[in-house]
Amino acid sequence: MINDAALSRLSLNQRTTASWSLPEAIKGCVEAGLGAIGIWREQLAEVGLDEACRLIAESGLRVSSLCRGGFFTTADPAEAQAAEANNRTAIDEAAALNAATLVLVPGGLPPGDRDLQAARDRAAGAIAQLVPYAHERSVNLGIEPMNPIYAADRGVISTLAQALDIAEGFDPTDVGVVVDTFHLWWEPGIADQVQRAGERIVSYQICDWITPLPADTLLARGMMGDGHIDFPAFTRAVALAGYRGDIEVEIFNAELWAAPPGEVVSTMAERYLELVRPYLDE
Amino acid sequence: MINDAALSRLSLNQRTTASWSLPEAIKGCVEAGLGAIGIWREQLAEVGLDEACRLIAESGLRVSSLCRGGFFTTADPAEAQAAEANNRTAIDEAAALNAATLVLVPGGLPPGDRDLQAARDRAAGAIAQLVPYAHERSVNLGIEPMNPIYAADRGVISTLAQALDIAEGFDPTDVGVVVDTFHLWWEPGIADQVQRAGERIVSYQICDWITPLPADTLLARGMMGDGHIDFPAFTRAVALAGYRGDIEVEIFNAELWAAPPGEVVSTMAERYLELVRPYLDE
Repeated sequence: MINDAALSRLSLNQRTTASWSLPEAIKGCVEAGLGAIGIWREQLAEVGLDEACRLIAESGLRVSSLCRGGFFTTADPAEAQAAEANNRTAIDEAAALNAATLVLVPGGLPPGDRDLQAARDRAAGAIAQLVPYAHERSVNLGIEPMNPIYAADRGVISTLAQALDIAEGFDPTDVGVVVDTFHLWWEPGIADQVQRAGERIVSYQICDWITPLPADTLLARGMMGDGHIDFPAFTRAVALAGYRGDIEVEIFNAELWAAPPGEVVSTMAERYLELVRPYLDE
Repeated sequence: MINDAALSRLSLNQRTTASWSLPEAIKGCVEAGLGAIGIWREQLAEVGLDEACRLIAESGLRVSSLCRGGFFTTADPAEAQAAEANNRTAIDEAAALNAATLVLVPGGLPPGDRDLQAARDRAAGAIAQLVPYAHERSVNLGIEPMNPIYAADRGVISTLAQALDIAEGFDPTDVGVVVDTFHLWWEPGIADQVQRAGERIVSYQICDWITPLPADTLLARGMMGDGHIDFPAFTRAVALAGYRGDIEVEIFNAELWAAPPGEVVSTMAERYLELVRPYLDE
């Protein structure tokens, strides 16, 4: 089935089916009737940008996100320059793919560095530095606040409120926010912050918070319905804020990665239809 | 050495030396020259309240906290009643021990329940219900906000701001907050919240955030200096807020539990003198 209406806003983030190459993932999305795909740069590099653009155009899929830019918390000037160059390349790729957003994962504390506020300030500064380049290419930079579990080693921006404090310094078409249930489900006042975000929500990513957490916390994410997150309530809030974009399923999970990717896509479509889709139009 | 001045505000939380019984821990504190101890109810029950009070009086130690009350997020009326009864007993024990506070760990989501806000509201309601009983016994209830890593299964109150929103409904002598570096180091605006807390800070608990997180996240805490937390900065903020109480080292860590407890106490005293003590009087 192609572009089945019920799944037209569902997007497969490539990390959910990590064993698939980009061509395989595109084929999988089309066969499952999804409307969009979230692309990772590592898999993009394997096929090259031109070929990826051709495959995407041929498929009719939207690119709901390019993952990922960011990792710009370094205090070292040479490293900061390298990070900026890398992010500019990512912006070029996002432009070519017409991605709804380039997801920015801020990065953690530099080794041995314990000044979290300074790292946060550097992340904000690095975003500001990228905006003109992204603006010229009509690329939206999506700041991804991350669960505090990753504050030390992956993402120093920890709440949607904090991401919005940064994003609001820029035009919404230039800088948005990525709303990911795994990262934000616990945030006090999250419904108000989602409402505040409004048109700045450039990506709605979903997966569940499961307990006990797996040993590798990077792989601690679960299929919707397997954990503690109230997807109907969260989805209602996102819809109420005006979000009309794609809903991207991004699950880092070793067990899922060991399963046949086609089955994972089927399960995620079922869960989406049960827990998310009915609450998108309220 | 007894009550060495430099260590007079250092307290050993019993969980740091989990293999010690209460009498052993009291002895260990006295021998190391610490001024206080944080007592756990499980070890307290082993010796009985009267004997514990006798041992504490004899030792000259302060009881910096009794751990722990709380776990009152259930939606079941019978369970809620049992939780309240249990908390009243804990209040009686805290009164007898003259503990600076009874630490309240809210508890997580009930099994199958995904309404986090409702669980938070029930926790706040349960605290309100305990206040008169605690007030009559001059026991301070210390709300412990917990790292969001535990929001699902241990503590639904996730930030100091959120704990203060609840605590501020009551007199500071009745309801305070527990400021634990592990739980709060990542909170945006934490220095402002610590300042806001002021006299409500009834316990300052310290341990480090280490990466990679150990497989069992309950045991993810590290010795000060082994991880990513800026203890001088955090301690300065707590001192600036007016805190003059004990500094309690609470570390859940399987490797430390396997080490000889006396050595653990020595190491924690060294780290305290290096990373915390110099910043308490600024």
